Amino acid sequence: MKKQDKISNAVIKRLPRYRRYLKELQKKGVDKISSNEFSRLIGYTASQIRQDLNNFGGFGQQGYGYSVEGLYNEISAILGLDRQYKMVIVGAGNLGQAIANHTYYYKAGFVVCGIFEINPRLIGIKINDIEVMDYENIVQFVEDNNIDIGIICTTKDAAQEVADKLCFAGVRGLWNFAPVDIETPSRVAIENVHISDSLHSLAYHMNKIREEK
Amino acid sequence: MKKQDKISNAVIKRLPRYRRYLKELQKKGVDKISSNEFSRLIGYTASQIRQDLNNFGGFGQQGYGYSVEGLYNEISAILGLDRQYKMVIVGAGNLGQAIANHTYYYKAGFVVCGIFEINPRLIGIKINDIEVMDYENIVQFVEDNNIDIGIICTTKDAAQEVADKLCFAGVRGLWNFAPVDIETPSRVAIENVHISDSLHSLAYHMNKIREEK
Repeated sequence: MKKQDKISNAVIKRLPRYRRYLKELQKKGVDKISSNEFSRLIGYTASQIRQDLNNFGGFGQQGYGYSVEGLYNEISAILGLDRQYKMVIVGAGNLGQAIANHTYYYKAGFVVCGIFEINPRLIGIKINDIEVMDYENIVQFVEDNNIDIGIICTTKDAAQEVADKLCFAGVRGLWNFAPVDIETPSRVAIENVHISDSLHSLAYHMNKIREEK
Repeated sequence: MKKQDKISNAVIKRLPRYRRYLKELQKKGVDKISSNEFSRLIGYTASQIRQDLNNFGGFGQQGYGYSVEGLYNEISAILGLDRQYKMVIVGAGNLGQAIANHTYYYKAGFVVCGIFEINPRLIGIKINDIEVMDYENIVQFVEDNNIDIGIICTTKDAAQEVADKLCFAGVRGLWNFAPVDIETPSRVAIENVHISDSLHSLAYHMNKIREEK
């Protein structure tokens, strides 16, 4: 893999989508694909696709197209999906449970090792065979098990405090679902997921369609 | 509001974030803000902010800055958040329940009117005071109640079929959480939410930080 330092965040955000479509193609037994065919499938322009993939040295051959398996493996490696990550979930409410149950993460190398909660009624139960433990013991657990990622499924008010504790304990990344932007020290990566933002985009597009009629 | 037709999707995707920060400022009693101050807060460059907001005619005044309340209301209107939307959820598993419980949607004008399920053990229960009904009756319910948005919280395999039924019944938008890109007729807006994409971006940034050390 050719190392490149100045890949924009916009390109990085498109890579998981490329990867998903390549996986579907692999499942259908497709070996190679041209940027034009890929364009029709994925909904980006062919020139956008070529430009994006050139960031990584480009994997296509003139007149041949892209190797589906090769491109899939390269993108997986770029994203760091060729290794395993250990995760803990904080908050065992519906959202925490939904994430604990999404078994396709595990296949992709993201393993949920524990769920932490302050509500005593939930401590001790198992969700998808993962034990719900007392939040009091989280620092020790993260240290002992070399946890890489903390998933925050708490309320908005608790989120930053939980983030601080997880960073202190030594996680390298936070995946935050609480509806607030969390801040981390520069050594810890953060993805703030604001589910409602996509609902607001949806409202915009619905009204746009109506106006155009 | 000045009507503009060629606003890029990238700008639209940033508007909900502007709106969230403006709401926080309002809560803190801030009346006005310069693009430079806003830049430090939200993490976009000041020129990006000015450029984005100019798409809508611009609401700032030279030497004064933006009116926090004015800008908040304008962005809300642009996104179509100054009216109410009626929604149904399909799938009463953890994810469907998590969304039904996120009461802050309701405050923002997005009302969940019903949840639909095929699993007979879940039909009849209430989640956050919303009844779980038999999926067999969904078309009638959507028609009778003028439902605007269908939220898909089913498995990957069921998602497109559910989408087709919701479109047939007359929804104007679909918010899809199943891990597959759904297709809709051009009269129906669609937001496919791929939660795992952000997990993959997180993995990339974690490895990037490690490499830089």
